[in-house]
Amino acid sequence: MKKKQLKIAVIGGGSSYTPELIEGLIRYHDVFPVSELYLADVKPGEEKLRIIGELAQRMIDASGKPIKLHVTLDRREAIRGADFVSTQIRVGMLDARSRDEKIPLAYQLIGQETTGAGGFAKALRTIPVILDICREMEELAPDAFLVNFTNPAGIVTEAVSKYSKIRSVGLCNLPISTKMQIAELYGVDASELFIEMAGINHLNWTMRLVIDGKDQTADFLERVAGASGISMKNIPDLEWDAEFIRSLGALPCAYHRYFYMKDEMYREMSVKHRETGKTRADDVKEVEAELFELYKRPELTSKPPQLEKRGGAYYSEAAVQLMKSIYNDTGDIQVVNVRNNGIIACLPDDVAIEVNCVIKSDGPHPLALSKPLPPQIRGLLQVVKAYEELTIEAAVHGDYRSALQALTVHPLVGDEQVAKAVLDEILRANADYLPQFSRVESK
Amino acid sequence: MKKKQLKIAVIGGGSSYTPELIEGLIRYHDVFPVSELYLADVKPGEEKLRIIGELAQRMIDASGKPIKLHVTLDRREAIRGADFVSTQIRVGMLDARSRDEKIPLAYQLIGQETTGAGGFAKALRTIPVILDICREMEELAPDAFLVNFTNPAGIVTEAVSKYSKIRSVGLCNLPISTKMQIAELYGVDASELFIEMAGINHLNWTMRLVIDGKDQTADFLERVAGASGISMKNIPDLEWDAEFIRSLGALPCAYHRYFYMKDEMYREMSVKHRETGKTRADDVKEVEAELFELYKRPELTSKPPQLEKRGGAYYSEAAVQLMKSIYNDTGDIQVVNVRNNGIIACLPDDVAIEVNCVIKSDGPHPLALSKPLPPQIRGLLQVVKAYEELTIEAAVHGDYRSALQALTVHPLVGDEQVAKAVLDEILRANADYLPQFSRVESK
Amino acid sequence: MKKKQLKIAVIGGGSSYTPELIEGLIRYHDVFPVSELYLADVKPGEEKLRIIGELAQRMIDASGKPIKLHVTLDRREAIRGADFVSTQIRVGMLDARSRDEKIPLAYQLIGQETTGAGGFAKALRTIPVILDICREMEELAPDAFLVNFTNPAGIVTEAVSKYSKIRSVGLCNLPISTKMQIAELYGVDASELFIEMAGINHLNWTMRLVIDGKDQTADFLERVAGASGISMKNIPDLEWDAEFIRSLGALPCAYHRYFYMKDEMYREMSVKHRETGKTRADDVKEVEAELFELYKRPELTSKPPQLEKRGGAYYSEAAVQLMKSIYNDTGDIQVVNVRNNGIIACLPDDVAIEVNCVIKSDGPHPLALSKPLPPQIRGLLQVVKAYEELTIEAAVHGDYRSALQALTVHPLVGDEQVAKAVLDEILRANADYLPQFSRVESK
Amino acid sequence: MKKKQLKIAVIGGGSSYTPELIEGLIRYHDVFPVSELYLADVKPGEEKLRIIGELAQRMIDASGKPIKLHVTLDRREAIRGADFVSTQIRVGMLDARSRDEKIPLAYQLIGQETTGAGGFAKALRTIPVILDICREMEELAPDAFLVNFTNPAGIVTEAVSKYSKIRSVGLCNLPISTKMQIAELYGVDASELFIEMAGINHLNWTMRLVIDGKDQTADFLERVAGASGISMKNIPDLEWDAEFIRSLGALPCAYHRYFYMKDEMYREMSVKHRETGKTRADDVKEVEAELFELYKRPELTSKPPQLEKRGGAYYSEAAVQLMKSIYNDTGDIQVVNVRNNGIIACLPDDVAIEVNCVIKSDGPHPLALSKPLPPQIRGLLQVVKAYEELTIEAAVHGDYRSALQALTVHPLVGDEQVAKAVLDEILRANADYLPQFSRVESK
Repeated sequence: MKKKQLKIAVIGGGSSYTPELIEGLIRYHDVFPVSELYLADVKPGEEKLRIIGELAQRMIDASGKPIKLHVTLDRREAIRGADFVSTQIRVGMLDARSRDEKIPLAYQLIGQETTGAGGFAKALRTIPVILDICREMEELAPDAFLVNFTNPAGIVTEAVSKYSKIRSVGLCNLPISTKMQIAELYGVDASELFIEMAGINHLNWTMRLVIDGKDQTADFLERVAGASGISMKNIPDLEWDAEFIRSLGALPCAYHRYFYMKDEMYREMSVKHRETGKTRADDVKEVEAELFELYKRPELTSKPPQLEKRGGAYYSEAAVQLMKSIYNDTGDIQVVNVRNNGIIACLPDDVAIEVNCVIKSDGPHPLALSKPLPPQIRGLLQVVKAYEELTIEAAVHGDYRSALQALTVHPLVGDEQVAKAVLDEILRANADYLPQFSRVESK
Repeated sequence: MKKKQLKIAVIGGGSSYTPELIEGLIRYHDVFPVSELYLADVKPGEEKLRIIGELAQRMIDASGKPIKLHVTLDRREAIRGADFVSTQIRVGMLDARSRDEKIPLAYQLIGQETTGAGGFAKALRTIPVILDICREMEELAPDAFLVNFTNPAGIVTEAVSKYSKIRSVGLCNLPISTKMQIAELYGVDASELFIEMAGINHLNWTMRLVIDGKDQTADFLERVAGASGISMKNIPDLEWDAEFIRSLGALPCAYHRYFYMKDEMYREMSVKHRETGKTRADDVKEVEAELFELYKRPELTSKPPQLEKRGGAYYSEAAVQLMKSIYNDTGDIQVVNVRNNGIIACLPDDVAIEVNCVIKSDGPHPLALSKPLPPQIRGLLQVVKAYEELTIEAAVHGDYRSALQALTVHPLVGDEQVAKAVLDEILRANADYLPQFSRVESK
Repeated sequence: MKKKQLKIAVIGGGSSYTPELIEGLIRYHDVFPVSELYLADVKPGEEKLRIIGELAQRMIDASGKPIKLHVTLDRREAIRGADFVSTQIRVGMLDARSRDEKIPLAYQLIGQETTGAGGFAKALRTIPVILDICREMEELAPDAFLVNFTNPAGIVTEAVSKYSKIRSVGLCNLPISTKMQIAELYGVDASELFIEMAGINHLNWTMRLVIDGKDQTADFLERVAGASGISMKNIPDLEWDAEFIRSLGALPCAYHRYFYMKDEMYREMSVKHRETGKTRADDVKEVEAELFELYKRPELTSKPPQLEKRGGAYYSEAAVQLMKSIYNDTGDIQVVNVRNNGIIACLPDDVAIEVNCVIKSDGPHPLALSKPLPPQIRGLLQVVKAYEELTIEAAVHGDYRSALQALTVHPLVGDEQVAKAVLDEILRANADYLPQFSRVESK
Repeated sequence: MKKKQLKIAVIGGGSSYTPELIEGLIRYHDVFPVSELYLADVKPGEEKLRIIGELAQRMIDASGKPIKLHVTLDRREAIRGADFVSTQIRVGMLDARSRDEKIPLAYQLIGQETTGAGGFAKALRTIPVILDICREMEELAPDAFLVNFTNPAGIVTEAVSKYSKIRSVGLCNLPISTKMQIAELYGVDASELFIEMAGINHLNWTMRLVIDGKDQTADFLERVAGASGISMKNIPDLEWDAEFIRSLGALPCAYHRYFYMKDEMYREMSVKHRETGKTRADDVKEVEAELFELYKRPELTSKPPQLEKRGGAYYSEAAVQLMKSIYNDTGDIQVVNVRNNGIIACLPDDVAIEVNCVIKSDGPHPLALSKPLPPQIRGLLQVVKAYEELTIEAAVHGDYRSALQALTVHPLVGDEQVAKAVLDEILRANADYLPQFSRVESK
C-alpha cells in the first residue's frame, strides 16, 4: 500500500480481546504504521468500551508509538476512510450467548456458540449487523478490507461475499494455533512447516504436513493419534482415538469434537449445566468481569497474561499478520476464510472455505489442494456447508423455511420436529435482535 | 431383443417374494416370453426353495404358459446363458437381519435393515456375494443384465458398477409405489404423471410433479403436507409436518423418516424391542412362516393376498416392467438405480443414483434433472452418499478403516466412539459372513 | 394438454417451407387438433405470405380438416393465446443471405449461412427479432412453447434461454434426416434404432448406434467410412476419409464438412462464385422463385415434390413430431436444442446443446450421454461454443468487442486482422438490420 | 532441503544454453550449494558437450565456487542420486527442427518449433525420450525433481504427469520475461507486481496486473495495446491491434501471434523460406555455430553476451530460481507448468497448465485464478489443449488415430485431408526417431 499513514476501525472495540489487538499493532508498528485507530462500539457496551479505551491509551503511551486513538459510539465516523475495518462484535452480548448455549440443551442438543443450534442463533443475530457495516463501508471506505473475527466467522464471510461488494477476509485463531502446536511438536520453527488445512471455519482438517520437502503426514498422524495435545483452550480436551485418526487420514480441529465426540461433549455440557446451572458463557462472563477489573487498573499498561485463559491465543497474531501482509504485499501463506472458487471441488463455488492462501496486496489468493478430499471428510463438510448456506438465507431474508431446513440438515440436530421446536424457541428468545423475522409467522 | 426364447435366473429363488415375480412373468408372458426360468438358492435355503418351486410350478401350470421351470442349488447352471439374472438374496437370512436391527439399538442407534449401522452390516455381508455372482456372469452370461433387488439396493448397484463390467440395474418398489399413490391422490392414471424423483435408493425425494404439461408441485406439496398417505407398508406411518414439507420443497420418501424423524423412529423401535424383545425381522419371520405354510397348500395356484403384508407391493411390477422394457426397447420412463455420470451434479460421477431413466434395449438412460438440488436436500444426500462410498470400500477390501469412517460419517451414528463400538460388535456377530475382514484386527 | 382446440402461430409464415408444415398439421390432425392456424409475416414479405396463405387454404380445404386459417401482418394477433409459436423467419431475406455468403469469400473465408462469418452475420440480425417475439409471448402467450427453426437455430435457442423466460425448443431437420438415413442403411424402421447424437446445432456427432440392445457403433462407422451416403441436400457431398472416421470414432454431420474439409469446401465455393458470380443463396432464390410460381397454381392443393430440392426434407416431420409429442405427452426421444444443464460436461451449464431428449408435456428432458466426449470432439465443440456465446453477447448488447472476439475465436476465421476486417464490412452491409450496433464505433 | 551438498544432472548438457545455467548456479551458489554437477548428452552431441564442458569448467574455476563438474555420455551415472534433473534435450537436433519448420510450409501451414504440425512432430520425438529419463529417475533418483525445459514444455510436463510418478515441473522463460518487461514498463521492481497469468505453455494470457493493492489491468491493456513492446526475441515482433487487445481483455503471449496473426506469420515464414530456403532453425544453426566458436576460446570464462541473441533470456533465471526456491522452501510465486487439479475449471483435471504457483520445498502449489476465463480465451485454450492431449496419446502409444485427430483439431491445421498428408510426411521424415510408430500402418 505504501501509504505512510493507516487508519484502522475496530468495530466491537469494547471486546475483552481488544488489548490483544492493541499489543499487536504496537509490536508491528514499524512494518504496519497505523496512525489512526478507532475503537467503536454500541451504546450498551459504552462502559466496557471506555475501560478498553483507557487501557489501550495507556498501552500506546507506554509504547511511544505515534498511534492516535479514538473511542467512539459513532460507527460511521470510525469507518470513514479506513484502510482496514476489523469486526469483533457480539450482538446481544454474553447474555445472548448464554441463551444460545442453554436453549439447545433443553432439547438434548449440543449448545455451542459457533455451531449447531447455538451457532445458528448467533448467525441470525450477527449477519444483518455485519451487512449493515458493509453497506457503510461501501459508502465510506469502499476500498477497505473487512477483517472479520466475529463468529461464526465462516458463515459471516460467506454472507459478506454473497451480499456485499466489500473485500473481506474471515479470520480465526484456530489455524495459527494448530500450526504453532505442530511446530512445537516437531521442535522446529513454524516457518519451516507446510501444513495443508482444508475445510471451513471450525470444521477444518489438517490434511498434510511437509517439513523440508518431505511429506510427514503419516508420521504426524501417529504422533497425534491418541494424544490430545492439539486443541483450543476453550474446548474440553477429549482424546482422539488412535485408530480413528488413522482411518480419518487427517487431524480434526478442536471443534470437530462437537461432531466426532458429540455424545461425550453433550454429556459434559449437560452435566455441568444440570449441576451448576452454568454453561461456557457463564464462565466467560466471570473471566471477563475479572479481566475488566484488571483492565481498569491504572498501572496496567500491557496485555495481562490472564487474557489467555479467555481462549484468544494468537488472535492478535492472526489479525495483525493478515493486515500487515496485505499492507506489505508479503506473499506469505496464511489460513483464512475466502470464497471457494473451485478450490474445494466438492463444494459450490460461491461458499466460504478456510484454506491456505498467499496474502498479497490485493488480499488472499487460495492455493490448490494437493488432492481431492476423501469421502469421510467430504461428506461431513458438505452437509455442514449446506446448513451454512441455508442459515445465511434465513438470516438475510428472515426466511423461516430456510431456517427450519438449516437446523434439520445440521448433523447435530437432524430431527425435523426437534429442529422446529428449538427454532421456534430461538426466534422467540432472540426476537429483539431478529427484526428480519418479525413479519414471519411459524405455523 | 427379438429373441423368441428368454432365460431368466432368479438368485435367491427361495425368497417369499418369488410368487410375486412368477405372477408377473405369467401376466406379461405375451410381451416378455420367458421360456426357461431358473430358481437358484443356497443349501441352507433348500427347503424354502422347494416349497417356492412347487408353488411356482402350480402357478405356471394353471396359467398354461410355456415356461419351463428349473429349481437348483447350482448357481452356475442357473446363470449360464441367461438373458436376465435377478438377485434377491439375503446373506445370513432373517437371523442376520434380526441382529442388524438389534445391535444398533444397544448403542441407542436406529436399527434398520437398509440404512444406518444395520444396513451397513447387511452391505458388508451382501456385496461380496453379489460380486461373486457378477464374476460368474462375466464368465457364463456376459451380455445378461443383472437386475438387483437385494438391499441395500443402491449400494449394491454402485459396488457392481465399480467392481464389475456386468450391465446392472438396481431396483426398488418404492418409486413405483410412490407414483401409484400420487396417481390415486390425483385420480388419474399413473401414465399421466411426470414425476421427477431424485436421490439415492431409500433416500429419494419427489421433487416435481407435472400433469398435462402443468407443474403441480406446489399443489402437490400442500396435499401431502401433514398427510401420511404416501408410505410403505413396512415403515411406521408417521405424519410429515406441513411446514416441514413446504420448507423442504419436496416429498421425502418413506425411509426419510429414519432421518427426519429419527427420534420418534428410534423411540418406537426401542420401546417395541424393550417390551416385546422383537424387531421388524421377528415380525417378518412370523409372516414368512405363515406365508410358507400357505405356499405349501397344493390347492394354491396363485400369489396369495397375504403376501402384500410383507411389504412387497409392486415388487413384481417393478422387476417385470424393467425387464420387458429392455426386451421390447420400450423407451418408457422408470426410476431405477444407475451410475450417476453427472446427472446429480453435486455427487461424484461414479456413484449410484436413483432417478428417472428411459429404458431402451441397452438398458436405462438417465434423464437430466430440471434444476440443481437445493442445499437442504443436497447436504443430506451428500453425507449419506459418502457413507455409501466408504461402505463399499470396506465391504470389497475388508478395510476396517473405511468401515469405521463409514459409520462415523453416517448421520444416524456420527459419534466415532459409538461407531467403533458398534462396528466391532457387527464384525464379531457377522464373522461367519465376512471372510474379507478375517485378517483385519481392530486395535 | 388435453385441450380440444389448439392455436398455432407461424411467424415467417410466408416462407417457402410453410407448405411442409401445413401438410404435417393436416396429416397429424387426429392426434394434434389444430383449430386456429395463424401465418404471420412482415410487410416486405406480404406478397409471398399471400401466395402461401392461398395454397395453405387450398390444402386445408382439400383435407377436410377443421383448421381455421388466418393470414396476417399483425404478429401480436397471431401470438395472442397461442399454444405453440413457430418461428421460421429470415431477417433481411435472401438478399441478406447472399451477402452473408459473399462477404467472407472476399476475405478468403468460407461464406456459409449458419456458421463462420456468414452465420455470425445472420445471428446478429436474427437474435434481436426473436427476442422481440419472446417479449410478445411473455405478454400474450406466456405458457406457449416457442418452436424455433430459424438459423442459426442453436445460437437462437441459447439466446432465448439466456434472455427470456419463454419455454423454447430449437429444431433442425438434420438429426431426423440422419436417423432416417441410418435406418435405411440398416434396412430397419427408424423406431428400432437408438442413436446417441451429441453436440450443438450443425456441429453434431453421431456417437453411438444401438440396434436391438447391441452396440453397433463400430460396424456403423465402417459402413459410413468413405461413403458419402449420409448428408444433407444443401451441402456438397464430399466423401469422408475412412481412416478419419475411424480415428474420430463418430460420424460427423453434414455441416462438419465446413470444418474438417474446409479447404475443399472453400475451393468449391470460391470457384463457383468466381465463375458464376453466384453462391448458394442465388440458387435458392431461383428455386424459391420457381416454387412460388408453382404455389400460385390454383390446382395445387398439396405440397409439391419440388420443395424437397430446397433442402427441407423432414422439416415438417421434425416440427409436427415435436409439437404433437408435447401435446400428447408422448415421451418419445427426439434430438432437439435445449439448455445444457450438465449433460455435456465439458460445456457451460447455460448454453444450448443438441442431444437426445424425451419429449413430455412440459417439453424436452435431455438424456445423459453414455460417456464423456473424447478430446477430438470436445476441443472443436468447445471452441465453436465459445464463438456462439460471444456472438449472443454481441447480438443482444450490440457489443463490438464481443463481436470481434467471436470471429477471432471461430476456427473458420482465427486471424484477428481478418476478423476485424470482415466484421467491419458485415456491420456496414447489415447496418439497416443492426440497430443495436448503431451507437458503437469501431476504431 | 537443508542438505549441504546438492547433485544436479543436466540432460542435454551440450546445449548452447548451458552456460546460462552454469552462470546461474555460480551466482546463486551461496543459497543453492551445488557440489556435484553432471552434464550428460548423447553420442552424436559428444563434441558439443566437450566444448560446453570445458567452458563450464573455466567458468567454475574463475568463480572459485566448490562445484565439481562431471561431463559424461552415461545418463544413468548423471541421474543416480541427483537432487534435481534438468532436461534440455533436442531429439534429432537442429536438423529435425529444420524439418519440423519446413514440412508444414509445404502444406501452406505455419511451421513452428513448438506448436502446429512442427511442434507436434517435436512432441512425438521428445516424449518417449523424456519418459525413458523418468523411468531411470524412478530407479536411480526417485525423490529428485525433474525440471524440464524441453519444448513443447507443457506437453512434456503433461506426459510426465500422466505416465510417471516422478515429481516434475515444466519451465519456460516466457512468463519471467513478460514479468520483467511489465516491471520495466511501469518502472518498478518485478517484486512489486502481482501478475495473473493463465493458460498453457506458449499459450498463456496475462489476465490481471496488481500493483500495490490496486488492479491496474485496464491501464495496462491500454499501454500495451498497439505497442509491440512485450515479446520474445525469437518471434517476429508484430504489433497487436489496440481494439483487439481491449476486446480480448488480456495480453496474449508472444506465441499467440501464431494464432491471432496466423496469416501474417505464415506469410513472413513462407516468404523467407521461398526467398532464402531458410527457416528459423537455419538461423539458429548459424548462431549456434558462432556461439560454439566463441565457447571454444580458452580465454572465455563467462557467458558471452551473444547468447542472448539465441532467445534464451532469463532461462537460467527461471531454472535456478525454481530449484533454489524448492531447496530453500522460499514460498515465492513463479509461473510454471503443473497438473491442473481444477485451477482452470474449463480444462480436465489431469492436464498441464501454466499458472502462478507458490514454490515450497515439496514443489509448486498453484494459486486459484481470481475469476473464470472468458469465452474468447477459454475456447482457444480448450481446443489447443485437446490437441495436446491427443498428441500425448499418439506419442506414448504410437497411435496413428490419435495423431490424425490431434492435427485435425489443431486450429493451425483443421482440415483433415491436410492433416493426414502432413502427418504421413512427418512420420516418414522422422521414422528414425519414432520407433513407437513402427508397427503402425497408415491406410
